[in-house]
Amino acid sequence: MLDLGDRISVEREGAIYEGVLMPSRRVDHLVIKLDNGYNIGLRVPDSKLKLVKKGHKLKISSPKLQEKKDGLPHVSILSTGGTIASRVDYRTGAVTSQFSAGEIISAIPELQEIANYNARVIYQILSENMRAEFWMELASEVAKEIQSGAAGVIVTHGTDTMMFTAAALAFMICTPVPIVLVGSQRSSDRPSSDASMNAICAATVATSDIAEVCVVMHGTVSDDYCSIHRGTRVRKMHTSRRDAFQSVNHSAIGKIDYPTKNLTTFTDNYRHRGDVDLELINRLESACAIVKYSPGASPDILNYYIDKGYKGIVIEGTGLGHVASDWIESIDRATEEQIPIVVTSQCLRGRICDRVYDTGRDMLSAGAIEGEDMLPEVALVKLMWILANRPKEVRQLMSSPLAGEISYSSSMLV
Amino acid sequence: MLDLGDRISVEREGAIYEGVLMPSRRVDHLVIKLDNGYNIGLRVPDSKLKLVKKGHKLKISSPKLQEKKDGLPHVSILSTGGTIASRVDYRTGAVTSQFSAGEIISAIPELQEIANYNARVIYQILSENMRAEFWMELASEVAKEIQSGAAGVIVTHGTDTMMFTAAALAFMICTPVPIVLVGSQRSSDRPSSDASMNAICAATVATSDIAEVCVVMHGTVSDDYCSIHRGTRVRKMHTSRRDAFQSVNHSAIGKIDYPTKNLTTFTDNYRHRGDVDLELINRLESACAIVKYSPGASPDILNYYIDKGYKGIVIEGTGLGHVASDWIESIDRATEEQIPIVVTSQCLRGRICDRVYDTGRDMLSAGAIEGEDMLPEVALVKLMWILANRPKEVRQLMSSPLAGEISYSSSMLV
Repeated sequence: MLDLGDRISVEREGAIYEGVLMPSRRVDHLVIKLDNGYNIGLRVPDSKLKLVKKGHKLKISSPKLQEKKDGLPHVSILSTGGTIASRVDYRTGAVTSQFSAGEIISAIPELQEIANYNARVIYQILSENMRAEFWMELASEVAKEIQSGAAGVIVTHGTDTMMFTAAALAFMICTPVPIVLVGSQRSSDRPSSDASMNAICAATVATSDIAEVCVVMHGTVSDDYCSIHRGTRVRKMHTSRRDAFQSVNHSAIGKIDYPTKNLTTFTDNYRHRGDVDLELINRLESACAIVKYSPGASPDILNYYIDKGYKGIVIEGTGLGHVASDWIESIDRATEEQIPIVVTSQCLRGRICDRVYDTGRDMLSAGAIEGEDMLPEVALVKLMWILANRPKEVRQLMSSPLAGEISYSSSMLV
Repeated sequence: MLDLGDRISVEREGAIYEGVLMPSRRVDHLVIKLDNGYNIGLRVPDSKLKLVKKGHKLKISSPKLQEKKDGLPHVSILSTGGTIASRVDYRTGAVTSQFSAGEIISAIPELQEIANYNARVIYQILSENMRAEFWMELASEVAKEIQSGAAGVIVTHGTDTMMFTAAALAFMICTPVPIVLVGSQRSSDRPSSDASMNAICAATVATSDIAEVCVVMHGTVSDDYCSIHRGTRVRKMHTSRRDAFQSVNHSAIGKIDYPTKNLTTFTDNYRHRGDVDLELINRLESACAIVKYSPGASPDILNYYIDKGYKGIVIEGTGLGHVASDWIESIDRATEEQIPIVVTSQCLRGRICDRVYDTGRDMLSAGAIEGEDMLPEVALVKLMWILANRPKEVRQLMSSPLAGEISYSSSMLV
């Protein structure tokens, strides 16, 4: 009799699979979490499959960190929840946040060859429940770790809003060491979980020379490499694929080959370790909103935010950055009330240019600020930061790069 | 002395370039619109460049359609404005809608080898000013052309909201012939304009066997082929590139090789010419909205739409389709007031699955409808159509394919 959570060892045609018995969604699959953290599924019944050994249940709730090893850098892991810290609830089948960072480390022995870790739980939430107040607190906790001498900080995070948190940390912290956000698209007790590989690659980046806020996640659906994305240039572009995260409007900073752990950079255009001193400015104006325009949408939608006292608004317009002509008056009104309106595009890729078409020119006349080639989500977070810290410079700063979120361009159209 | 609009012929190392002198943004470039509609830029001064001939100014404002040719199919072109019908205002440098469909045809002689055309101007607007009322009228005009015997209908359209219009036509018209939306990213009097090639490829599709609403635009930044996108599966994914349009969550239906005009299909999964009889159901409920969630966004935003009497709402959630837990109560309220809440993902790619995480399960319990693998923009238009025509079936129909906008999937996660 095998129970979920039992440590087992099975043999099939000479190959030994040893690990912990995991829940499977299919009755004809036996899923084992191997000691490297990777899960395999074996079809059952299978006459060639033999149970070699059955141990007692793994106690995942009491992690044991190995002894610290001499000569390894010191990395801090702050866990906030999300799939990487989740497992399937055996009763309901749902996935809930239950693991701490310490448990993640103890479940992936390979991590302990890369660094010594200090692990702390900051939150245990699914990332759709993140918000500006949490980003501010998290930034402060990350800064504390850096001040205490961490060679790098890993933040484990749900993937849903990881890009928002990454951008928030990038604007709030000027960092002399890597700050790496990592998560997983499949919980670590499922077959094909990406948790181990992402965590191992994140640790590799955390001990590297790349002193930026970055997101490290699978680069392909295979287990060949992880991409290193700049925190202000990355977006979750698929609901479920392991390679959901993509750099937008900028190349990734580099990649980590998983088999060799070799780190390759695609550019030298990143902040190197020790280039700057640590600086934390973690105030955010949370009364900012993102408004996605769609054809026929009423300008009253924009008026709602103005009436409600929002301090800044990012419009996700069409194409080069447009809304219908009947929105111009409301943009004008926002400008009069000193509420900045920043224009980005629902195309996501490419640059805003409101000087080409009549609508855009009218929007600029009404005071709209071109969001250049910024992602809408990044523009929102940046606006929150500027309005809390340098409100008088909002117009100029929103169109200038502060944390690699904008590229300069001499001319957009031929 | 050369004037803009002059017909000229120049020679360089034996090659002759004949066409109309166009405005150039660079003082060191001479731009000529060739008779095939393509623009070339020649660097000046250039000692090897010789003016061969100078004619009188082309009168673009008085188009001359050639005589109808026997044996060619009859295609209708309805123009609605947009860049493909635009030119640069020589004074301001801005681009404005000025050409009619007839003028587009007469400017591209190659079009007249593919079909005989009836051209009508429906609107002369930039597409950010499109809205549901216009879609309804346009659908009616398209249906009239099909009833009158058109072998295919081309709708020239601004690229900003072309995907919304394409989806709207796809839900409103059951068509026995191709309905092809086409536009351009650069106005036809600019070098590197994509207007001619897109129009020629659109005409090729309009005379083909593909009886679907589709979008035909550049497949790459080169002039090698145009992609044929299903109208309910396409999205403008770049603000300015000529290959901005991409099929999402589905392959393109096919492509047209530009040099040969050969049409290749990638799938047989499309409606063939004559498969169905024409049916037009062009009512739309315009009181629908799309709400993009961002971390920390107040549930009062959703309440605003409920209070204002909106009839249906599409949420662009995070990841698999999530919002913060404090939005659940408002979703519950909408459900009680019989306002359907359809969940899509800001990831754009992939499928909604609200059964995996706690938040999603709470959203489903509150009555949210999973938008499957539909694009948020398509879900909005579909909701408008269902609420106007089959409101009692909204829950079932929003999760089922009506016009190829959803694929079935046996299981999303392993």
